[in-house]
Amino acid sequence: MPARTHHIQIDPWTPLGQQAGVGHNRWHEDISPVLEVEPDDRVMIDTMDAFDAQVAREMQHADCGKLDLGPVHPLTGPVFIKGAEPGDLLEVRLLDIEADPWGNHGYTAQVPGFGFLRDVFTEPYLVHWDISGSYAESPELPGVRMGYGSHPGVMGLGRWGELRERILSREGALLERGGAVLMPMADGALPANLGDEALRTVPPREVGGNIDIKQITPGASVLLPVYADGALFSTGDVHFAMGDCEACGTGIEMRSRVHVSFKLHKGEAARRDIRSLQFFRDTYFNEPELAAPKRFYATTGFSVTEEGENRSEDLTLAARNALLAMIEYLGTRGYDRQQAYAICSVAVDLRISQVVDVPNFLVSALLPLDIFL
Amino acid sequence: MPARTHHIQIDPWTPLGQQAGVGHNRWHEDISPVLEVEPDDRVMIDTMDAFDAQVAREMQHADCGKLDLGPVHPLTGPVFIKGAEPGDLLEVRLLDIEADPWGNHGYTAQVPGFGFLRDVFTEPYLVHWDISGSYAESPELPGVRMGYGSHPGVMGLGRWGELRERILSREGALLERGGAVLMPMADGALPANLGDEALRTVPPREVGGNIDIKQITPGASVLLPVYADGALFSTGDVHFAMGDCEACGTGIEMRSRVHVSFKLHKGEAARRDIRSLQFFRDTYFNEPELAAPKRFYATTGFSVTEEGENRSEDLTLAARNALLAMIEYLGTRGYDRQQAYAICSVAVDLRISQVVDVPNFLVSALLPLDIFL
Amino acid sequence: MPARTHHIQIDPWTPLGQQAGVGHNRWHEDISPVLEVEPDDRVMIDTMDAFDAQVAREMQHADCGKLDLGPVHPLTGPVFIKGAEPGDLLEVRLLDIEADPWGNHGYTAQVPGFGFLRDVFTEPYLVHWDISGSYAESPELPGVRMGYGSHPGVMGLGRWGELRERILSREGALLERGGAVLMPMADGALPANLGDEALRTVPPREVGGNIDIKQITPGASVLLPVYADGALFSTGDVHFAMGDCEACGTGIEMRSRVHVSFKLHKGEAARRDIRSLQFFRDTYFNEPELAAPKRFYATTGFSVTEEGENRSEDLTLAARNALLAMIEYLGTRGYDRQQAYAICSVAVDLRISQVVDVPNFLVSALLPLDIFL
Amino acid sequence: MPARTHHIQIDPWTPLGQQAGVGHNRWHEDISPVLEVEPDDRVMIDTMDAFDAQVAREMQHADCGKLDLGPVHPLTGPVFIKGAEPGDLLEVRLLDIEADPWGNHGYTAQVPGFGFLRDVFTEPYLVHWDISGSYAESPELPGVRMGYGSHPGVMGLGRWGELRERILSREGALLERGGAVLMPMADGALPANLGDEALRTVPPREVGGNIDIKQITPGASVLLPVYADGALFSTGDVHFAMGDCEACGTGIEMRSRVHVSFKLHKGEAARRDIRSLQFFRDTYFNEPELAAPKRFYATTGFSVTEEGENRSEDLTLAARNALLAMIEYLGTRGYDRQQAYAICSVAVDLRISQVVDVPNFLVSALLPLDIFL
Repeated sequence: MPARTHHIQIDPWTPLGQQAGVGHNRWHEDISPVLEVEPDDRVMIDTMDAFDAQVAREMQHADCGKLDLGPVHPLTGPVFIKGAEPGDLLEVRLLDIEADPWGNHGYTAQVPGFGFLRDVFTEPYLVHWDISGSYAESPELPGVRMGYGSHPGVMGLGRWGELRERILSREGALLERGGAVLMPMADGALPANLGDEALRTVPPREVGGNIDIKQITPGASVLLPVYADGALFSTGDVHFAMGDCEACGTGIEMRSRVHVSFKLHKGEAARRDIRSLQFFRDTYFNEPELAAPKRFYATTGFSVTEEGENRSEDLTLAARNALLAMIEYLGTRGYDRQQAYAICSVAVDLRISQVVDVPNFLVSALLPLDIFL
Repeated sequence: MPARTHHIQIDPWTPLGQQAGVGHNRWHEDISPVLEVEPDDRVMIDTMDAFDAQVAREMQHADCGKLDLGPVHPLTGPVFIKGAEPGDLLEVRLLDIEADPWGNHGYTAQVPGFGFLRDVFTEPYLVHWDISGSYAESPELPGVRMGYGSHPGVMGLGRWGELRERILSREGALLERGGAVLMPMADGALPANLGDEALRTVPPREVGGNIDIKQITPGASVLLPVYADGALFSTGDVHFAMGDCEACGTGIEMRSRVHVSFKLHKGEAARRDIRSLQFFRDTYFNEPELAAPKRFYATTGFSVTEEGENRSEDLTLAARNALLAMIEYLGTRGYDRQQAYAICSVAVDLRISQVVDVPNFLVSALLPLDIFL
Repeated sequence: MPARTHHIQIDPWTPLGQQAGVGHNRWHEDISPVLEVEPDDRVMIDTMDAFDAQVAREMQHADCGKLDLGPVHPLTGPVFIKGAEPGDLLEVRLLDIEADPWGNHGYTAQVPGFGFLRDVFTEPYLVHWDISGSYAESPELPGVRMGYGSHPGVMGLGRWGELRERILSREGALLERGGAVLMPMADGALPANLGDEALRTVPPREVGGNIDIKQITPGASVLLPVYADGALFSTGDVHFAMGDCEACGTGIEMRSRVHVSFKLHKGEAARRDIRSLQFFRDTYFNEPELAAPKRFYATTGFSVTEEGENRSEDLTLAARNALLAMIEYLGTRGYDRQQAYAICSVAVDLRISQVVDVPNFLVSALLPLDIFL
Repeated sequence: MPARTHHIQIDPWTPLGQQAGVGHNRWHEDISPVLEVEPDDRVMIDTMDAFDAQVAREMQHADCGKLDLGPVHPLTGPVFIKGAEPGDLLEVRLLDIEADPWGNHGYTAQVPGFGFLRDVFTEPYLVHWDISGSYAESPELPGVRMGYGSHPGVMGLGRWGELRERILSREGALLERGGAVLMPMADGALPANLGDEALRTVPPREVGGNIDIKQITPGASVLLPVYADGALFSTGDVHFAMGDCEACGTGIEMRSRVHVSFKLHKGEAARRDIRSLQFFRDTYFNEPELAAPKRFYATTGFSVTEEGENRSEDLTLAARNALLAMIEYLGTRGYDRQQAYAICSVAVDLRISQVVDVPNFLVSALLPLDIFL
């Protein structure tokens, strides 16, 4: 049993920037810890929703286009793990996630310019969810009921040591080649004084970040290689549920209370040469059913564009095609395209069927049928 | 209940080319059906293993480098579906798969020049499996037991109508751009007289082919859009089990008896604009446990090369990294790299965690822990 | 979504008798409701543990023999359902159960003179459980981990109308024949003024009571026939987990917060002639794994006494034999007899294998193997 | 892997008495083995249906009243296990069960004078099942589909040593007291010459017999204490599926091919004092879904007769009441009483909810909702 239990409390109705000493929304090594713990301690961590209290239940589709992306993602922490040193492996045991104990509210937002199909879906769209006991329902998606499959979208370490330079260098190079890279943005940054140089929570990197791995539900453990003393763990962006893909960039976003405990494996990242996040589940308890649909409808996609051009071994294109076919399929069930895109983001699993049969790789998109009432 | 039951019997010990009127290993519209059925009939279809009886139980690793790829994949059929016309949707209901009722033998082959990591794994390697009741064990992979998750690697239609020209055109264009495309190969072709122009079973296309979708186990239905009269259904390349990825290009390959029935949805492919394979399962029966691991160990990969170059939105690279990390992890459990590659191919699921956080997409590789004794 | 949410709050550390207006521990028609709700309202109901705050974490085995049975079972309520009338069917939808949000503590008590094997187990024994996230562990039962399978031991209605006389009559007749019947007991009764005539919460009757049905976990609905206006619903005695049998009379007893909503089916009990409690689950969400062990060890029992006497069609005897054999089996795993009895009570499922093969009926006792670390 | 595989073949269309050297339908120590095996051998055992080929697919309800009960239950065997001695524990590993590979036919019979509710159901009734792939459907029970949950109704040892006298003595004593005991019956007995003294396959006893335990599906192991040299294992009466209860005395009866292997634990029955059948499953493979319904409708029963008499701690009565309430419930779904009784026998699980709350014990009857189309 854990030696001690700590609780980082937030006011979930107030933007994180107006609360002292509970969180941040950028990565920077100068951010001070809000809590220090022994490796075996247990911590309850209250988390803001991904848009930092901007989304009220009465908001409409159009409001969703006016969201300020600056404060994304508000994280609670960081937590300093005593004794953690470079080369260690930090295990974060996810014990429980309470789904919005304050308001029973969640949402799925389609923000223009953001998401896997941002070229196709250019209009704002907002789905509200009523979270009730063990499931969520939405007036915008009649006939759909999502079961609990809660997981933190962001888990990560805030001090990166020598890794930091490597990351800056490779992302800078990509930017120069014209790649899509999110640059530091002072607007909305927390802490404000580091906004010009602090890194965004997107994309996921070696020490975690916005990982959006739906299998990391209560019962799972996350392994993070430690690159700097104290590790500095933070979390946030918790989803009630999400599909393996999070197509439109949001799952069922919500406030939450995350229960974790820590375990420090001294020197094990170095010994096993673990350089990026791994995770496991060694229990049979509490596996959310939706993580593994038994009844489903599936579409497939392979490496040919809509215009008929065949590309070679392109998994991204296969995923896109499987997803577009699923959006069409959902149309035959009576959902319009934006509803369908939202359903994909929160419920559809993209599975890599094969990565061998050149030139076409194959992705299957599985829609669980049990979400339909 | 089906109106009639047919049985296409083969001699599983003799190459398909030496058996009259049961099968083929290339796609061509001039291949004659071996059976005509009413839409609601039921058919038991015996299938050869993927290498057409070349792999005997006493073969060694090195022998695996001498396999003739010409006869790959021997398919049983085609079956002419009476009344099937362009625009129809053919449902193939997979009722049952008997795992090698003749010899209880399976194998996983690493063939040089073939597979997702063919640049990394250049040596031949051969794993034999003893299939016993509901599971498979192998002397080459001590401590591993795979549960039944049988599915046909190849399911597809043989007459393509107007689709044929489009496919030839796009694959030809890709070949000219230097892409990886398998060209017609007369050597080993069946029927021999069409070898120069008949298409290979690889890659998967709109009407199926080598799809390798592990979710298509007994209880599932496959939907194929009909592009030409009679549809001409064939199947083969059945696996006892496979990971979502089939990394080295082979699962647990085996002989089998596949039980299917057909259902013809007149005009529905046209009506619903279904242009490529879809599938579903609407039953809770007989879901293989391994299709959804509850206990697992997982690695992750994102869009940065081993040399540290960051690529943008490259899912193929993310999948490769997750897989390489898993092979390393299996090393810590005592498996050498070729054993690990084989385990990945038959047991590890690649899940697309997110396709949003530019520039890094994230793939998780899930190893089910229940396969370890 | 429910129209309104109410919350009946208790002080879980203070005996119910010292708290005004939140509960009772006897059934009597004159008990006043503590809340009135519309049929579709939602209610959060805090519940005491089964022994009404008598069991502190530092208590020892011997203390367990001194427990006062008078306050058993403290119930929260009753809740008056507006519009409920005789002949109606009241559906209680169990939305969620929070496991001891105040103290993370549970216990399993063997109280002398109580339990299925009270002739065999005559000594007091007390097991403490640490409830942590989604599972419970105990220093008294090393190597055992129980997963969440929370359900209310007592759910029932407090106004019985014409049913009351029938119950008094049949239980009185049984008492005269020498049967085991719990009589009214003023000592510890709440409300105190009705202690001489109010009925005990044991046994379960047509309108519920101490039902101890482990399948009634969040996601399930309970159907109760209404025999009197307002129905008067109460609940308590919540378990973290229990075997199908609750052999020693206690599961993992704990404090809890139960979330329910109500639905009133007018006249349906009369129309469908439903005279006692029924329940259902029509969702695939949140089924506790332990409700259906996949890996297990099982013993069997049939209708022969230990002395070798064969009885005819005696299921009680078959259940007793299966249970005794399981206690012996647990001995071979290193647990002493009282530990084993406790494990049976919280984890072993008694299944009626057949009730046909005269003279021997057969009961199987299934021990889930996943509870062992 | 097993050393050798044997196959006991039968002609499933011909009564067992007309086939030489494959089986028997009574227990007697003078029955000769039909096969001798080493402890680790594997055996495929073809089995007759429970009524020994009397039930043809074209039979009607009334025909079911004319069935000859003499040949019940035809068993294949016995198999002599070399080296088995008193005090040993014989493990029978159930590897696979093929569901009627000859005819895809099953049936559920209500035979007057037989079954748990034989006082209530006095008319013959016959349900035919079409077994197709992994499920069974019946024209007599429209809208119902049962999934595969195959298990042998009878597994047992044929040489009982000193146990035999004890059994004869206790059953004789019960008969004298007026209990329901099946006596030896020469009519239909196999072997015919032992019919006057050989024991019936009913009831189950220490060495097995007609156990009807639905959890013993492929993947499970049965442990039988050896009381005489060679053990003499036989099996038969295989069901495609059955409820935990087999209320009317028949499940989905069918022909089958059972695959088993043996393992002999020398002296372990003596060492661990195992005196009757136990069983276990230590694998996650191939658990039939229906063994653990996720969606269900349930009725309950306790120890009060329909006339209102309260009995004390009577589990048999509680089971009866739960079952009768379920038959009523099935009436509200449109099934008549005999259909409902058949559905109970093949699909409803009786669970012992508690055996503590004197005088009323509680049994729940769970109807899986997934059987309804």
